[in-house]
Amino acid sequence: MNTTITETQTASVITSAELLEHWQGHRRLTRRLIEAFPEKEFFEYSIGGMRPFASMVKELLSIAVPGVKQIAGVEGENEYITQAAGKANILALWDKATDEINHYWRQIPDGKFHDNILLFGKYKGTVWFSIFYVIDNEIHHRGQGYVYLRSLGIEPHPFWER
Amino acid sequence: MNTTITETQTASVITSAELLEHWQGHRRLTRRLIEAFPEKEFFEYSIGGMRPFASMVKELLSIAVPGVKQIAGVEGENEYITQAAGKANILALWDKATDEINHYWRQIPDGKFHDNILLFGKYKGTVWFSIFYVIDNEIHHRGQGYVYLRSLGIEPHPFWER
Repeated sequence: MNTTITETQTASVITSAELLEHWQGHRRLTRRLIEAFPEKEFFEYSIGGMRPFASMVKELLSIAVPGVKQIAGVEGENEYITQAAGKANILALWDKATDEINHYWRQIPDGKFHDNILLFGKYKGTVWFSIFYVIDNEIHHRGQGYVYLRSLGIEPHPFWER
Repeated sequence: MNTTITETQTASVITSAELLEHWQGHRRLTRRLIEAFPEKEFFEYSIGGMRPFASMVKELLSIAVPGVKQIAGVEGENEYITQAAGKANILALWDKATDEINHYWRQIPDGKFHDNILLFGKYKGTVWFSIFYVIDNEIHHRGQGYVYLRSLGIEPHPFWER
């Protein structure tokens, strides 16, 4: 098998606008999962000593907008480190984040995606890698939410519908 | 909040070679999850009426190489629709797929990522979307494997190490 690396494979796979829409599609699905949880189980139910789904969602909120803001070069406090109780509050924060992600994303300069950054002062990587990490982390934890819902006897929204 | 779409955000986010390495990083992590399962539980354990992790892994194998082959324009049977029993056999198939993904990926013409295709004769979308679907689907099911392992009292390899 030929495993020589072809040096020509540097073509663009996806544009900034497409990646944003891809992420927002995933975020719409995650929102449906949050909606599907009963109020109490959202905050309390867990399997194998893992966190409840609400705690995972708070993590997603705490890194999404703040990550995009940093990449866009916008200073500010992290308003998404939240103790918000109640699914309705979490869903309202989720929708606020949807708008803010769209807003700050447009301030990311073209050509910045291969710059190196230190996300949140801690995580070293290129801009594209950092954004992919945030999206992949959401898919990862949402997959865990699917197991929680199934084990509660609730059928989650299909993975392929965004 | 300004929500006007900026038409300039068409810059490349990630290259073909970077996306391949990103996927293979995820595949290395999935391989570690497979390794972490006890033999019996890999094929039999499940939560909430879901499939055992082995069935999910067989799905991942059945679409990874065949998907890349189709995108690269290479004809052939799907050798990855497998009834293979035994974790060792699945791991051997996984490693074969690793090499074949690298091999066929290099045959994807630059500039093809925005072409429309009908993946496996069924799923309509651009090439980039189809590849992202395959990767995202792996992250999704692997996240479910994390819950299975945790509920078995086994600590999975960290998500951020690839």
